[in-house]
Amino acid sequence: MTAGRATIAVAIGDPAGIGPELAAHILADPELNEAARFIVFGDARVLAHGAAATGSTLEVDTRRGGDPLDGDGAVLVDLGHLDPATITVGEASPEGGRFALANYRAAVELAASGGADAVCFTPFNKSAMKKAHPSYDDEISYTAELLGRPDIVAKEFNILEGLWNARVTSHVPISAVASLITHDSVLNGIRLTDASLKEAGLADARIAVAGLNPHCGDGGNFGHEDDDILRPAVEVARSEGINVDGPFPSDTVFVRATKGNFEAVLTMYHDQGQIAMKLIGFDRGVTLLGGFPFPICTPAHGSAYDIAGKGIANPGATRAAIFLAAKMAARRRDLERAG
Amino acid sequence: MTAGRATIAVAIGDPAGIGPELAAHILADPELNEAARFIVFGDARVLAHGAAATGSTLEVDTRRGGDPLDGDGAVLVDLGHLDPATITVGEASPEGGRFALANYRAAVELAASGGADAVCFTPFNKSAMKKAHPSYDDEISYTAELLGRPDIVAKEFNILEGLWNARVTSHVPISAVASLITHDSVLNGIRLTDASLKEAGLADARIAVAGLNPHCGDGGNFGHEDDDILRPAVEVARSEGINVDGPFPSDTVFVRATKGNFEAVLTMYHDQGQIAMKLIGFDRGVTLLGGFPFPICTPAHGSAYDIAGKGIANPGATRAAIFLAAKMAARRRDLERAG
Repeated sequence: MTAGRATIAVAIGDPAGIGPELAAHILADPELNEAARFIVFGDARVLAHGAAATGSTLEVDTRRGGDPLDGDGAVLVDLGHLDPATITVGEASPEGGRFALANYRAAVELAASGGADAVCFTPFNKSAMKKAHPSYDDEISYTAELLGRPDIVAKEFNILEGLWNARVTSHVPISAVASLITHDSVLNGIRLTDASLKEAGLADARIAVAGLNPHCGDGGNFGHEDDDILRPAVEVARSEGINVDGPFPSDTVFVRATKGNFEAVLTMYHDQGQIAMKLIGFDRGVTLLGGFPFPICTPAHGSAYDIAGKGIANPGATRAAIFLAAKMAARRRDLERAG
Repeated sequence: MTAGRATIAVAIGDPAGIGPELAAHILADPELNEAARFIVFGDARVLAHGAAATGSTLEVDTRRGGDPLDGDGAVLVDLGHLDPATITVGEASPEGGRFALANYRAAVELAASGGADAVCFTPFNKSAMKKAHPSYDDEISYTAELLGRPDIVAKEFNILEGLWNARVTSHVPISAVASLITHDSVLNGIRLTDASLKEAGLADARIAVAGLNPHCGDGGNFGHEDDDILRPAVEVARSEGINVDGPFPSDTVFVRATKGNFEAVLTMYHDQGQIAMKLIGFDRGVTLLGGFPFPICTPAHGSAYDIAGKGIANPGATRAAIFLAAKMAARRRDLERAG
């Protein structure tokens, strides 16, 4: 057992997509198993199906739900809740959504109870999730619901090769964005970004705040928020010792970041960051849900229905998600031990 | 004289930047001079200064303002209005702004009177323009003012290696964007994009309309405009025979365009397109002002005060601007002759 080796609860995602294959990749990868101990939640038949797609015959220590999880090696918790023969590959179904939700719930509950240091999941399919759980909106609100913490301030971080992006507003209409940009929402976004970077061991990371309006409002000609709200929030954060600067015009801040000027960009609305990150190649990246009592990571790409079951899914982003979760979890353990 | 060879009126831009060097490049480039006849507006001393920076000794047929412009070769119209010794390189000044404005006014007037088929300009500096002409906002409104056509519907097109981008709204606060997205503003944007592409000889170009809200509003969950305004406008344009589709989620539409799915993207607001185009490398691209009675082109990059006078300015984008203007002008001539 590696000192400080994290335990990661892994939820197998949508069974009609590449989630089962990627779970099989995780369990079969010696480097990943050295970085963390995995407790995988799913169904043994679905996992075997995924392993077969990758051409491997996976042997994994399998337990039933409720069994003790003692030991040092990877474990599959077989919830016995889905026969893959009932699922059509590449099709969103309520059964598929229920399967992924049950696995995720079990993984989050294990971490919340202290039995795991982090949670990872292979891709969900949003449409299937909604079919299974109509009030499902996104992973953040669902996780807050599972934890009974509707008040929690959590954010999605998109991370690609050392470049982090989080956003102050997310799934809201453009018409609502400006009214949600407040001193507190910007300052909280900066603080959470800083805290998450530090948790990932990036103590020296520089955070850039993207302006809300074109050219940051051009001195007030096209909007006052950049001068009246963003700039003062950045100043307060700086006075707290956070390495943050801005606002910077959002049409060049990512160009500057890709040249190495910043390690993180806090954007004001969904597409401001997503346009840039997807062009840079974010499909190869990692999504981190930050602000919860434990890190939650997943590959940035989706359930890829078009290539599911073919064994050609690239495990690169999943590996990056696991490594990030393992690093953050180990660091958190060290801090807890120290503190 | 080449049949159909266009006459292009060229305004030397800000004298403290790389504009004079780039004007010297234009006049010295045999390929460009084969594509068009140039009438350059400026001051002989400023142009000589720019030529010296590039290491060339430019000999150009020089006339005074008001002289006849007969002949086949390139001509410099020496307005005798600026001694470069009075200008500090790399500094925005009212004198520099006045110089660029006077050159541009002369070039636009020549084209408006039929003496040139297109206008090009080397980079302006906005701050200098505003010092010289406080009501100066951007090239589009200034050109409309010069032409006495405040009603004209013109748009800026950003063009990089075959990918065109125009936007429905531009220099307005984010808080005002949604209210400016109307059936007419979207439809007019599609029509002008289509007309401009066709004028540039790109009759088969496919236009993608970018959604306003994240995930195009996700079926109304985050805003209704994509379904209620954008989609019907696209349908009307299609019924007019325009090759347009959408709306598409704006965080993947440029990824798809760079893969060759579309030749043009119509965005709803400034940074939606600018974030993408600048990441793709738009500084190497061309800005076209479309919708005026003649094409107006300029390199996409700015006056580059940091490298002005060093002779290291890359003329690539300026050459692309000239070639686009020459092509559009020649085509328009052919159409006028045919019609």
